[in-house]
Amino acid sequence: MGEVVKMTEAVSVSDATLRSFMGYHVKRAMSVLQADLNATLKPFGLRMVTYSALVMIVDNPGMRQTQLADALAIERPNLVVILDQLEERGLISRDKVPTDRRAYALNPTEQGRALCAEATDANRADEDRLLAGLSKEQRAAVIAAMNLIEQGGEA
Amino acid sequence: MGEVVKMTEAVSVSDATLRSFMGYHVKRAMSVLQADLNATLKPFGLRMVTYSALVMIVDNPGMRQTQLADALAIERPNLVVILDQLEERGLISRDKVPTDRRAYALNPTEQGRALCAEATDANRADEDRLLAGLSKEQRAAVIAAMNLIEQGGEA
Repeated sequence: MGEVVKMTEAVSVSDATLRSFMGYHVKRAMSVLQADLNATLKPFGLRMVTYSALVMIVDNPGMRQTQLADALAIERPNLVVILDQLEERGLISRDKVPTDRRAYALNPTEQGRALCAEATDANRADEDRLLAGLSKEQRAAVIAAMNLIEQGGEA
Repeated sequence: MGEVVKMTEAVSVSDATLRSFMGYHVKRAMSVLQADLNATLKPFGLRMVTYSALVMIVDNPGMRQTQLADALAIERPNLVVILDQLEERGLISRDKVPTDRRAYALNPTEQGRALCAEATDANRADEDRLLAGLSKEQRAAVIAAMNLIEQGGEA
């Protein structure tokens, strides 16, 4: 170990190697997007994951728990906690399916639909603010790149 | 509640509303990037966060724990666990700072430098594969957009 020069002085810090990876840039941006979104959702009593679940149920009334778990790539036990929260607040209901005794259909309540619409408007305004410096073309280019990465990982 | 139509049939699921947010696309891509990277790092006994810490220490010998926590936006107690792991494996050392009795300087060992170089090569190959469909210009555009988002959140 004697050959390694041990520095003991504070140095200015560089993350140049990490910045050479696209993944690092995406991660840093994601942290900001997530913090920003959670701050926007807080007045609605929602977090990113509970909002995502609520939107999916509003957009897909009658969907099954397994479909929601697949769509959001959430583990089943974690999803149960999220659905419990949404149900306790009267935002969704879990309804028995006559044709399948083990399945429950997820449905939004009127209150759930209304809160979801308000939260979506707030998120839209928030994201527009955060992306104000990007042209429509740039936004489309980023989304295309993200989709390519998303699909590449599954190949 | 009577006005809400309750669906009890399984339906095909749409995430169109979520897809109208850039943040959702970034999150889906990030999940793939992270899973991919963690799979690549596994043979080295590293995860995304332990690799990031190791790279930073290799690039910035003598850096302080507080500097590393700031650079990676990791909470101090979580960082301690990560540094313990790296030190136990003989990849880094924590050296006393003569001028500051409370501070420790983080230094890579030779073994740590070697493993870091190997892991960086593997990550580079992995990311190049995942981003093969993107031109150099597209990659630069995505990074510029991510940096803009990162800075926008701090404003």
